[in-house]
Amino acid sequence: MGGCVFSAITNLECPRCARQYSIDTEANTCVCGSPLLARYNLGVVEEAVQLDLFPTKINSMWRYSLLLPLKSPSCIFSLGEGWTPLLVAPRLGARLGLRTLRIKNETVNPTGSFKDRGLCMAVSKHVELGSTSFAIPTAGNAGVSLSAYAARSGTRATIFMPIDTPEVFFKDCKFYGAEVVPVPGTIADCRTEMTRRGDVGTDLSTTREPYRVEGKKTIGFEITEQLDWEVPDVIVCPTGGGTAIIGIWKAIQEMQAIGIIGERRPRLFAAQSENCAPVVKAVEKKASSIEPWDEPVTDALGLRVPKPFADELVLRAIRDSEGGAVAVAETDIKDAQKLAATLEGINLGPEAAVGLAGIHNLVEAGEIDPDEEVVLLNTGSNARYE
Amino acid sequence: MGGCVFSAITNLECPRCARQYSIDTEANTCVCGSPLLARYNLGVVEEAVQLDLFPTKINSMWRYSLLLPLKSPSCIFSLGEGWTPLLVAPRLGARLGLRTLRIKNETVNPTGSFKDRGLCMAVSKHVELGSTSFAIPTAGNAGVSLSAYAARSGTRATIFMPIDTPEVFFKDCKFYGAEVVPVPGTIADCRTEMTRRGDVGTDLSTTREPYRVEGKKTIGFEITEQLDWEVPDVIVCPTGGGTAIIGIWKAIQEMQAIGIIGERRPRLFAAQSENCAPVVKAVEKKASSIEPWDEPVTDALGLRVPKPFADELVLRAIRDSEGGAVAVAETDIKDAQKLAATLEGINLGPEAAVGLAGIHNLVEAGEIDPDEEVVLLNTGSNARYE
Repeated sequence: MGGCVFSAITNLECPRCARQYSIDTEANTCVCGSPLLARYNLGVVEEAVQLDLFPTKINSMWRYSLLLPLKSPSCIFSLGEGWTPLLVAPRLGARLGLRTLRIKNETVNPTGSFKDRGLCMAVSKHVELGSTSFAIPTAGNAGVSLSAYAARSGTRATIFMPIDTPEVFFKDCKFYGAEVVPVPGTIADCRTEMTRRGDVGTDLSTTREPYRVEGKKTIGFEITEQLDWEVPDVIVCPTGGGTAIIGIWKAIQEMQAIGIIGERRPRLFAAQSENCAPVVKAVEKKASSIEPWDEPVTDALGLRVPKPFADELVLRAIRDSEGGAVAVAETDIKDAQKLAATLEGINLGPEAAVGLAGIHNLVEAGEIDPDEEVVLLNTGSNARYE
Repeated sequence: MGGCVFSAITNLECPRCARQYSIDTEANTCVCGSPLLARYNLGVVEEAVQLDLFPTKINSMWRYSLLLPLKSPSCIFSLGEGWTPLLVAPRLGARLGLRTLRIKNETVNPTGSFKDRGLCMAVSKHVELGSTSFAIPTAGNAGVSLSAYAARSGTRATIFMPIDTPEVFFKDCKFYGAEVVPVPGTIADCRTEMTRRGDVGTDLSTTREPYRVEGKKTIGFEITEQLDWEVPDVIVCPTGGGTAIIGIWKAIQEMQAIGIIGERRPRLFAAQSENCAPVVKAVEKKASSIEPWDEPVTDALGLRVPKPFADELVLRAIRDSEGGAVAVAETDIKDAQKLAATLEGINLGPEAAVGLAGIHNLVEAGEIDPDEEVVLLNTGSNARYE
């Protein structure tokens, strides 16, 4: 471990062409066009596990710091993100015909969504590397999250958001002091506008830099730790840009490599609205890349992503885990929310409602067995949709 | 400890006349009119501390179960409340002239406020005692919280809320399946209407039953545990009904009795809006009871309480801790919120903004020394105010 006892990170690697990159300089994507992933000295972490030094007792996602990219604790700009509850939902599970349904409640993150994990990690790491300003195209929650972490780190944020996003998202970003640019169109158009402007700071677009995934993967660590280091049978991820599904799959692989879990792996399912289901379409066609979806119009704003940039990684996680993808009628969203609220007192965001309706469809289709242990990600609060 | 290893609770006691009550039957207030407090076999807990069995590693307020009233784990209807982050706020502290300001961020509770602690506890305990329906007068957040925990426990909730409360509070309560009754006037009028109706379920009015305080006191345990069992110098509590200040003071006394902290105690300060400052007025007059405030009109809805029912206990906690009370200009609320958001990425609810402005005033007045360690409670999310 040398002088660095805080992180076992060694390098960045292209999962497509295996090119290696240094972690000591800014890197976004591989020259081959693929996203990059962070790699660690897993032997060191395995030793730490045996010495009971991994994970630590820290009450946030930073409990896994050895498998996170930050080298210096002084660069952690934390608001207490992560280490969220994994709630058993017995009545809701029974209604879906499941013996064990659990909900990973990401709404209790600092700004109300799982975006906080990725953006805390990315902001902290890029500040460590010297960044002082950031920019992001966002469907909403990621923009609010970046705004908060930019304030926390004393850096500047510029947020590019679809002009038809509910007003409260704009208000929240501005409240933290961010500059917000409304853009006609989808998150894809936001990115185009951001690139056109140029010089707005380090680009934190989903999977265009390697560290948001590192934050998101802690969801996979946490679910497993909260089940006493047993993976569930199924994890259902509402999927837009795909960072959660990529991150969770990376976490599973890392946990196996360090020996903290055995051979068994969960099946990962992506849930999308039928009005924006590019992942589902690609899975059905057994494709290894994803075609952009025309006119994505779902109310689940976080899922309004025409094409994940990391499409190969999303599809590989689904395929390698023997999971799948499920589309859900847009009209099921409100019913699913009402069901979770009244049966369990859990307020699902619209994205998680898509996930819940997806579980229903998967059970009906026989893709999930009633005896299997199923985990649903409640990715973000419903508060900004009210 | 006999057969009950889960809770060391022994009885209920009147802090005014010392009458004793059983914990095995429903009890609300003492025949003398005072609130009741739960008492524990503190010797048993002291032993548990020495055996490293208290607190447990549970990732919620239930880590303190030995000092909580639930006898049966099967009656805990948890949504993961408590064990919230204690965030250092260096830039905000510096702006106020303080070396160490920390914020206990209660907005990341399941329904977005510290009310979740008290209502989870009260609902769980009263269900253990046989309740199947609940009623509450509320300024807003407590109503949303009860609605969620009623859903979680499969019980019924009836919420009495001032008719001029923002619509989203009504909507959120109903979303969880609660019945909501809009009442002209303040929370005091809500209680009158609730009593007039009768037969709406177990009365969970602030400090009219002993268990909400037991939930709230876990804030005191947590702040202290998060500072490695050292109390801070000052805790500033935005104060409406006073449960937090009473609970935290009770926690301090219990922690001293079980030997987990030493003699040093924090000074507790109540912060209120100058437009509804009955506690401040009573403290200034060195009174031992509180006069109802005429026409309370603050935007910090949680502080819109004309007179805390547990006025004697609130004033005693302030007096015995050598703390105080501070009034804040209503116009300071938005400025304080903006400051916390832009300097720290922390979104204070309007009540906590009153607390922050209160700290400013206390530092200016020399009642808080710049070198003292100060903790502010961010009692609830700003989301429902937007």
